[in-house]
Amino acid sequence: MPGSRVWYHAYSMAEYSIGVDLGGTNYRAASVDRNGNILERISGPTNSPAGREAIVNAIAGAILELRSRRAGEQLAGIGVALPGFIDIAKGYIHASPNVPPFQGFHARDALQDKLGAPVLLENDANAAALGEKWFGAGRDVDDLLLLTLGTGIGGGIICGGKVLHGFMGMAAELGHVTVDPTGNPCACGNIGCLEKHASATAVSGMARYLNLGENLTAEQVCGLAQAGSAPARRVFELMGWALGVGLANYVQIFNFPLYLLSGGVLPAWEFFAPAMLREVEQRSLTYRSTKTRIEKATLGSDAGLVGAACLPFHS
Amino acid sequence: MPGSRVWYHAYSMAEYSIGVDLGGTNYRAASVDRNGNILERISGPTNSPAGREAIVNAIAGAILELRSRRAGEQLAGIGVALPGFIDIAKGYIHASPNVPPFQGFHARDALQDKLGAPVLLENDANAAALGEKWFGAGRDVDDLLLLTLGTGIGGGIICGGKVLHGFMGMAAELGHVTVDPTGNPCACGNIGCLEKHASATAVSGMARYLNLGENLTAEQVCGLAQAGSAPARRVFELMGWALGVGLANYVQIFNFPLYLLSGGVLPAWEFFAPAMLREVEQRSLTYRSTKTRIEKATLGSDAGLVGAACLPFHS
Repeated sequence: MPGSRVWYHAYSMAEYSIGVDLGGTNYRAASVDRNGNILERISGPTNSPAGREAIVNAIAGAILELRSRRAGEQLAGIGVALPGFIDIAKGYIHASPNVPPFQGFHARDALQDKLGAPVLLENDANAAALGEKWFGAGRDVDDLLLLTLGTGIGGGIICGGKVLHGFMGMAAELGHVTVDPTGNPCACGNIGCLEKHASATAVSGMARYLNLGENLTAEQVCGLAQAGSAPARRVFELMGWALGVGLANYVQIFNFPLYLLSGGVLPAWEFFAPAMLREVEQRSLTYRSTKTRIEKATLGSDAGLVGAACLPFHS
Repeated sequence: MPGSRVWYHAYSMAEYSIGVDLGGTNYRAASVDRNGNILERISGPTNSPAGREAIVNAIAGAILELRSRRAGEQLAGIGVALPGFIDIAKGYIHASPNVPPFQGFHARDALQDKLGAPVLLENDANAAALGEKWFGAGRDVDDLLLLTLGTGIGGGIICGGKVLHGFMGMAAELGHVTVDPTGNPCACGNIGCLEKHASATAVSGMARYLNLGENLTAEQVCGLAQAGSAPARRVFELMGWALGVGLANYVQIFNFPLYLLSGGVLPAWEFFAPAMLREVEQRSLTYRSTKTRIEKATLGSDAGLVGAACLPFHS
């Protein structure tokens, strides 16, 4: 639609938003409509060694490119999801271990100045929880908790339709809670973190203990379980046990109607879910007394991208 | 108060509210002003064997008596705190193990009908958390978590100034979370509940294990610790350890600025707090990175009563 006609059809202009999911290795950007449908995508490497300015330029370039492809449409705003502890009100990143140049960075204002459009930041796991709440498995509830089982375990808590941030943006560190106080040591300083017993990394570690192989991925261990390997199945039983201890606690604490699991370990659901649900059932009176659902998330790796993109529609 | 004069002085009439804290053994009722000051008190036994009607009559009688003593003043409403799982919107009690006749009871409407005044219900631990938030140690924050260390361990979570109820009124079962997955068995079905490792009952149990005596109360074990008993001090170290594991998880999950402890075990603070804080410090990166406070609640056993009484002022 030619620019000269914009004012003329303003009331009927299509509205879209742009989201960025900035990870430690790659960034992904997409234009998204109000219903969470992805219109177009751009991705590229997150070049942390090149420094802050290079990363800002890369994602700003992707955003401008997506914008140029929707000339004549109304941009509602830009949402950026990234790993780390964020002061949402100030648009300031306290810490971001996976994107070190962004630590101590007023990223919102820097991007707004460069783009001339409103920018909102959100932690990536929180953005994924919002994505699932708005367009995924959580569409019918206002309260949910999402655990992302990947290299680590991330978490997001949606309470009354809003993200639970905590007073320093550090809430929902759901992978760094103790499930076994004498369990595996964690780089965070704790012993027995859920992440050290139920992440993809933990699955690989247990496969090594059981002599399945030195550097198997969780996906490969899942393949072995599918092929009937008893020790591979045992790995997922133990992983399910740890997840069950953690989830039972979350059910006891929140009494939410819905707890979602996503991430790279999800394809092994059939191998870990029975042990997980057995443990939750035994450990949580609330789970046994209510219609609490523990389910797979449905947006996959797009949850954070879509959640980020739709922040401007809900702010 | 003659009805004909009510409208005349309505704008300048002193306003008060009435609260009831209904426990398994006793009930306490009080008239309270808008600032949380207790004006008058009445208490009596909770006679559960006499049945639902007898309990309702007892607390309604206390409320009417308190009301009659403030003739000419404006009653804002009545708040009733009780142990159990409550559907606040419906004023319905799903379960109340400590006051069995109230299970499956539309208590709010029954009391409203009898008293001709608006009644609000709240879980007793949640009411205590509200009391501390409005008038106690939590006056300067909008988000806090309260643990009450008594015979069991109760909990209340205030998030954005409001109680976190959960979809069935069962949130904040903070005593029934796992701190040691192979720890002590609990009647709730779990193994290693915080309550079984850090309540007054757990203190008594550990004192028995350490041959301090068969039926010592937590208060007596505290007395022994004060007198220099090494095994009594060891009991509180172990209790502090369990509390630290649980609190570290809460800090990781909520990132609230304030966590409060209350209840009968609180006088032993000097004996359990060092182990507790050491454990939280080691296990919670969030605690180490922020100015998170773990402190004594200040309203003591009146927190629930005052919180209940002031529900009508904040509804």
